[in-house]
Parts: sequence; structure tokens; C-alpha cells
Amino acid sequence: MSVLAEVIDDLVTGSRILAAEGICDAFGHVSARHPDRDDRFLLARAQPPELVEHDDIMEFELDGTPVGDDGRKPFLERFIHGALYAAREDVRSVVHSHSHSVIPFTVTEAKLRPLLHSSAVLGKDVPVWDAQTTFGDTNLLISSNEMGEDFADVLDSGTCALMRGHGSTVVGRSVREAVYTAVYLEVNAKLQISASSLGEIKHLTDGEIDLIQSRLADAKPGEGYDRAWQFWCRRAGMAHTYAGSDT
Amino acid sequence: MSVLAEVIDDLVTGSRILAAEGICDAFGHVSARHPDRDDRFLLARAQPPELVEHDDIMEFELDGTPVGDDGRKPFLERFIHGALYAAREDVRSVVHSHSHSVIPFTVTEAKLRPLLHSSAVLGKDVPVWDAQTTFGDTNLLISSNEMGEDFADVLDSGTCALMRGHGSTVVGRSVREAVYTAVYLEVNAKLQISASSLGEIKHLTDGEIDLIQSRLADAKPGEGYDRAWQFWCRRAGMAHTYAGSDT
Amino acid sequence: MSVLAEVIDDLVTGSRILAAEGICDAFGHVSARHPDRDDRFLLARAQPPELVEHDDIMEFELDGTPVGDDGRKPFLERFIHGALYAAREDVRSVVHSHSHSVIPFTVTEAKLRPLLHSSAVLGKDVPVWDAQTTFGDTNLLISSNEMGEDFADVLDSGTCALMRGHGSTVVGRSVREAVYTAVYLEVNAKLQISASSLGEIKHLTDGEIDLIQSRLADAKPGEGYDRAWQFWCRRAGMAHTYAGSDT
Amino acid sequence: MSVLAEVIDDLVTGSRILAAEGICDAFGHVSARHPDRDDRFLLARAQPPELVEHDDIMEFELDGTPVGDDGRKPFLERFIHGALYAAREDVRSVVHSHSHSVIPFTVTEAKLRPLLHSSAVLGKDVPVWDAQTTFGDTNLLISSNEMGEDFADVLDSGTCALMRGHGSTVVGRSVREAVYTAVYLEVNAKLQISASSLGEIKHLTDGEIDLIQSRLADAKPGEGYDRAWQFWCRRAGMAHTYAGSDT
Repeated sequence: MSVLAEVIDDLVTGSRILAAEGICDAFGHVSARHPDRDDRFLLARAQPPELVEHDDIMEFELDGTPVGDDGRKPFLERFIHGALYAAREDVRSVVHSHSHSVIPFTVTEAKLRPLLHSSAVLGKDVPVWDAQTTFGDTNLLISSNEMGEDFADVLDSGTCALMRGHGSTVVGRSVREAVYTAVYLEVNAKLQISASSLGEIKHLTDGEIDLIQSRLADAKPGEGYDRAWQFWCRRAGMAHTYAGSDT
Repeated sequence: MSVLAEVIDDLVTGSRILAAEGICDAFGHVSARHPDRDDRFLLARAQPPELVEHDDIMEFELDGTPVGDDGRKPFLERFIHGALYAAREDVRSVVHSHSHSVIPFTVTEAKLRPLLHSSAVLGKDVPVWDAQTTFGDTNLLISSNEMGEDFADVLDSGTCALMRGHGSTVVGRSVREAVYTAVYLEVNAKLQISASSLGEIKHLTDGEIDLIQSRLADAKPGEGYDRAWQFWCRRAGMAHTYAGSDT
Repeated sequence: MSVLAEVIDDLVTGSRILAAEGICDAFGHVSARHPDRDDRFLLARAQPPELVEHDDIMEFELDGTPVGDDGRKPFLERFIHGALYAAREDVRSVVHSHSHSVIPFTVTEAKLRPLLHSSAVLGKDVPVWDAQTTFGDTNLLISSNEMGEDFADVLDSGTCALMRGHGSTVVGRSVREAVYTAVYLEVNAKLQISASSLGEIKHLTDGEIDLIQSRLADAKPGEGYDRAWQFWCRRAGMAHTYAGSDT
Repeated sequence: MSVLAEVIDDLVTGSRILAAEGICDAFGHVSARHPDRDDRFLLARAQPPELVEHDDIMEFELDGTPVGDDGRKPFLERFIHGALYAAREDVRSVVHSHSHSVIPFTVTEAKLRPLLHSSAVLGKDVPVWDAQTTFGDTNLLISSNEMGEDFADVLDSGTCALMRGHGSTVVGRSVREAVYTAVYLEVNAKLQISASSLGEIKHLTDGEIDLIQSRLADAKPGEGYDRAWQFWCRRAGMAHTYAGSDT
């Protein structure tokens, strides 16, 4: 199977996983940089992630222009994706969602920070982008390259950033990593809300975050991202797409 | 298909969606103004929304009198619907529910306000109607036109109002809009309870609410209400009723 | 169908409903007074409520002695049921559960009180029974008539009472009423915990409680308890057992 | 059936139960001491617990060395299990998980203590192990015998201990007991978070804990652990593996 076919497979399965895990509902999307052309990215046509099929994957230039436009309706917010691929060479996949537990951290001063080893992928600082800061009153959607670039500036060199009154966006070195980070962003947010009600929280130290991230970067099949992917494939009814370490 | 048949389809599908999304349980109902006669509305006979079929839809005069009464049992609280259609020409659909996260805002001084872009449909002010204010001790149900009119006065020109110790009612320009608003009223309430535990909340600004509402009003197939409807149809086992933008 | 057969049907369906609604897990039970003999009650043999079948229903004297003992294992806590039937002529059904949201009100000073019209069935006062008060350290289970009678004294003339560190027990004039009360005890507890985090709660007034209870007492098929029962039957996979108002 | 075959059956069913009850997700594991050799234990190869089959069960020496290594990938954290079997003769089974409600108690000063009769199995003191204390910055995983022994010291003679920013581990005299304790650790944590929001909590007294634990130790088929196991088997799709008291 070509690398392109593998990436498209992961986009379809990743969309279904994000729906099954409750990270996306009717809204949200996952993209990948084109494996053969760094100046393009792949993203489904506009539709709920749970419904994404292979034929729904479209190709875009980094400024959001559809390649070989065939009339399929693209996501309005494709500018989030393009801007991040343009700003960061290391980014190979982007997930944008409105997952629920994260929202409270976008509208309060409470700072979301990793407290669980599995959420070390969120990094040492999770910034919040507020469309108001640069653009004043808007409909909060990232509907232009200018807004996308402003968001990319705030995300900076991190793995995720929150969007005030809207949701969050994460980046990864692969679709599987981005999906993993999106899920554990939600898990960490949910646990941090609970823990906050009990008292002061002891978050992961910077040293712990570095060590856990470096272990994940070196993970083999069956470990870390891969074991989670296997589990989520099954829950999303996509077990047939998982080729594990033993096969 | 006639407009009337389309509206009845949406009432049946909308009832199932409200059940599947946990907005209604055994109780709650969705109605539509009759598309051919502004002085009548359509509402299922009294039964759990999950069970509503086409043949269950009854026709009512705005004062709640069943048209061509055939012995089917109407909902006691049909007066909510009639009073809103009588008071507001722009209202084409009404949803009444007891969805759980909204209840705490009906019995405390905490003010429910939109904090998420998807909940801008709730508008700038969500009033609380208390049967005690005008009627003293009651069984809390809106069981007369007098009570319905009192509630319509409190809802005023808005899209939703809460009912103390009881639930909430939303209005829309279509069944799909009213169902969307009912779902995001619940989502916003749930998120506002969580966010309140973290600190002061930055709600949507009035300007943002206006911009988002105007975008939704102009939405095309595949966007906003329509994409959510497609997703919810599938979750409610009603995917076959959705004719999307590509068909 | 004989009244006895109807009551046994309702016990089986009620057990399944309590499991499907998450009121009971592996533990908990629902009983009914024998319709032909006020000095006996009917209760399943010891097993998870989700598994109860017609043949599992046993007959007991009010002191908990199995009638025609055939070696089936009875619930240890049958003394809760017997003591309530002995103390209160009006009680026709009893539900005991460990439903989760209620537990916090059994171990804190917070007073559970109805805040939702559907939970008016809980009445004006929901007492907490603590085994410590009369019996000192125990395993918290009501494993004797003496403990059952002590609990019945605390429940007094009400419809429900909480049990510290253990759960709750409700009584009803029918199996359907007791199941309804058990479900709305849990719902009210869940909502009261949420509402407490927002501020002072305006509970139902005594007058409202009286009016709602009197409406429920006079409810016809398709209303109140009956509409909820129809809905819950369906969710519990027992729709075939519901004979509605139209049949 | 040999005792070994029974233990392996319980490991497979226990894995599925931990997944179905939401105690384990992609991660977590349950082991048993080898019934014929106290110096060995049984644990599945590395994979999500929901997928565990009989053929996945591997045999280990107490220092974590696989017996008859055949290339199957073992869990990295098998050192938790080995260290506990080495330190405690009475331990016959170990469950390690990241169940969500427990995490807040690992990162705050709030002390987890039993408040529900079913959670008396947690004992009078639930300590928190922090990898930082002895090892400084790590990736938080117990990846050596040295770390396993340090954790066993903190668990001491108890039935469970929490792990900061990571999860928890429980021990039992059988697989069924360990699974029961893992489930009720999560339930107690969830309820304690809720109850904390209502005020001061009245936890179980030491005398109550002793009495409940002694009842469970003497439980017959159909009671306590066994009734819960029957219920959980059914929910996990493993009802066919349960041979109840009547068969």
C-alpha cells in the first residue's frame, strides 16, 4: 500500500475514532499533510466525522484552495489546518474539535496543564487563542488565512492550543499522534475540573513531561499511541483496519 | 412531497432526535405551526417522544382545541405551544423539555448565558419563568391558555426561556432550528456548570452573538443546523430521512 | 390475567427497568405486597435485578420467612421490605437501591429535597437513617427484623428514606409508583448536587408538592407514572409487556 | 477443570469486565499468582484488556522474567505485579488501572477513604505513592523491580494504593476480589468527589470496615463478590463463563 493510501486510511479511521470517543460530534475535523507534497494537505469534505469515507478526502493547497475543485463542499475552517502546515514543518496532522471538557478552560482564567502521565503530550504550556484580541467581534470561526496565521502564532511550537468560546486544535507528527493528543486533551480537562474541586493540584513536572514525551516518540508497535489506536479502532467499529505488531 | 408532509417528517424525526440526544425522556414535545394555516399547529398525541410516528401527529387550534377530535389523548401542556404561536408570528416550531443540565439554572440565581459559539442561538438574555409569580402554588405544569400567555410574555422576543423547577421551552423558525437550540441549551448549561467551578466566565459578547446568529440564518445545506441534523438523524436511527446537499 | 399475575409481571419488568435506568447494579431489589394476602410479600430470589424472571419471585411472610421454602436463596435484606409492609398498610411496593447520586446525601449534612416537579413524589421531608444511631458498628446491612423496624420508624409516613453509607429505600402504592419514585429520587439527587454548586436552591414549596402529588394520584393511563413506565419498558427491552391506554 | 484453567478463565473474564466497567481503557492489566507455583504469576501479553484471550496469558517469574519466552510482548509494568507477589504471601491477584475518578485523589491532598459499605474493601488507609519521592523525575511508569518494590512498601499491608499522576493498583485473595476492589475504588472516588462538594463527609468507621470485610471474606455463592461477578460477566458479554450457585 502506498504511503498516501495509508495516510488516507488513517484519516478515515481517525475521523471515526474522534466521533466514537466523543471528541467530535457533528463538527470537528482531522487532516494530514500530503505525504508526497509538503505544500498540500488532505481533509474530508464538510460533513460529520462519523460519516467520513475514503472518497470524501479532498486535497488542498496550504492557503485552503481545493486542488482540482470538483464541487465538493470543503470545511469552512480548513484555514486552521493550512496555516499550521505552513508555519510548522514538523506538523504532519491536525485535529480541530469542540470537545466538551476543554471548553471551560477556554472561557475562564483556569490554566489547563497535564496532570496525568498520558497527557504529557499536551506539553508544558497550553495557550488560549481569543479571536477578540486581534479581530474584535467575529463569529469565532477561523474563516481566513489571516485568522489561521494568528492562531498558528499562538500555538507557536506547542502541540495544542485552546480557542475561546469555541474549542481546541492539536498537532502531531502523525494522524495517530494527533488523535491521541486530542483524546488526552479532553481526558486531562475532565480530570482537572474534578481535581480542582478537591484542592491544589500537583501537575506533572517539566522533567516528567520531557521523559514521557521522549518515551512516546520512541514507542514501538503495541505501546503508547499504537495500543490506544488498536483499542479505539475496535470501539469505532474499525478493528479490521488495524494491522498490529503480530501480523 | 408537500410542505405539510415535510413538516410532519421533521416532527417525527425531531422527536426521535430529542430522545436520542437525551433532551427528552418520557416527557417533552416538539410542535410546528401548520405550514398552510397560521392559526393551527401540529403536535403528537401524548406519548414519549421516542415513540412518535407519523400517525401520531394531531392538529390544534392556537387555543389548544384539537381539530377533528378523534379521541386521541393530547399533551396537557399543548398550551405552551399555542400561546407562543399566537404571540409571535415568526415562531414556526416549539420544543419543550426537562433536559437535566438546564434545571439547576431554573432554581438558582445563576444566570444561564451562551459561552460557546454553537450556543449563540440562545440569545443575549435567557429569562426564567416562575409559575409562583402570577399563579401562586400550582402543579407547575402549563395547563391553561392563561398560563401559556404568561409564559409567552416572559419569553418575549427571545429564543428560549427556563421554567422554575420544571424545564425549558425554545422556539425556532423551523423544526430543525428549534431542535438545534434545545440541544445547545442543554450543552451550554452543562458547560456553564463546569466552567463556574473554575472561576469567572467570559461569555460571548453581544457582537459575537449577533454575528453568529446571522451566519446561522444564512446557512446553506451541510452547514450549521443542517450538518447537526444529519449527524443527529444518524444517531437516532433516522439516517434514511436525511436528504443531504449532495442528493 | 389475575391480579397476582399482573403484580408478578410488574415485579419482573420493574427489576429490569431499575437495572436499565442505572438505579440498581448487581445489588438492589423491588418487592410487592401479595395482592390476595396482606400478610405476605413477593420478592425475587437473591440475584442481580437485570436477571430476574417470573420463576424467581418468592413469597415471604412479613417477618421474612420464605413461604414453602424450596431452597432458593432469599435476599439478606428482605427485612427492609417486611418491616415496611408491617408498619404501613398503604404500602404496596418497596424498592431498595444503592443508586449513586443519592449516596452523597447519606454521608453529609446536605438535606435532599425536591426541586423538580417530577420529584414531588419524594415528599416534604427525606430522612436519613444511620445504623450507628441504634446499633453502633454494623456491616450496614438491614439483616434482622429489629433493624427493619428501626428503619421503618425513620421512614415514618413518608415515601422514602436514605441509609447512611449504603443507599435508599422508597415505598409506593404500586410497583410502578415505587419504581417512579426510585428513579426520580436519583434524578433529584443528581440535579441537587449540580444546583448546589451554583448557589442557594429554590426547592418546591409545600403547596406545590401537595398539588403535584394529588395530580399523580389521579393520573390516567398515558400520564405521569404510566407514560414513564411505557418509556422505561422500551429502554429495558420490555416494550412487549406494556399494554397502553389505546389497547 | 484444573485450578490453573479456572484462574486463566477468571483472568480473561476479569480483563473483559475491567474494560466493560470502564476501569481499564487501552491500558491497565490484571494478573494472578500461579496456583501451582507461588514463585510465578500469570499476566496477558501487552494489549488492551478488552481483547485478552486465553492464549494471551503468559507466565512470569516474580522478577518479571517471562517463562519460556516465545517472543510475545509483555507489559512494561509487570514489575508492579511481581513485586507485590514477592512482598505479600496473601496476595493472589493484582489489578492496575488508570480509572478516571481515582486520578484527582492522586494529585491533590484530598484523602480517599471508604464512604459506602461496598467500598469497605479499600480498607482504613489508602496511601498515595509518588515516583518523585524516591526516584525524582521519571516517566511515572513502574518499569523496574526497584520501583515495584518501592511501590509495594507504600501499599504495605493494605488492599490498594494510588500512584500520583498515573492511577492505582489493588490486590486481592482472588481475581474476583481484586476486580471487585478495583471497581469499588473507582465508585468510591466518584462518590467522594460529589459528596465533597456538599460538605463534610461521614466516612465508614473502622468498626464498620472490619465487620463488612469479615462478611465479604465469608461470603457464599450469590453474595457479595460473586453476585457482582455474575452481573459484570453479563455486561461484559461473558455470561456464559459464569457458573452460579444453582448450577
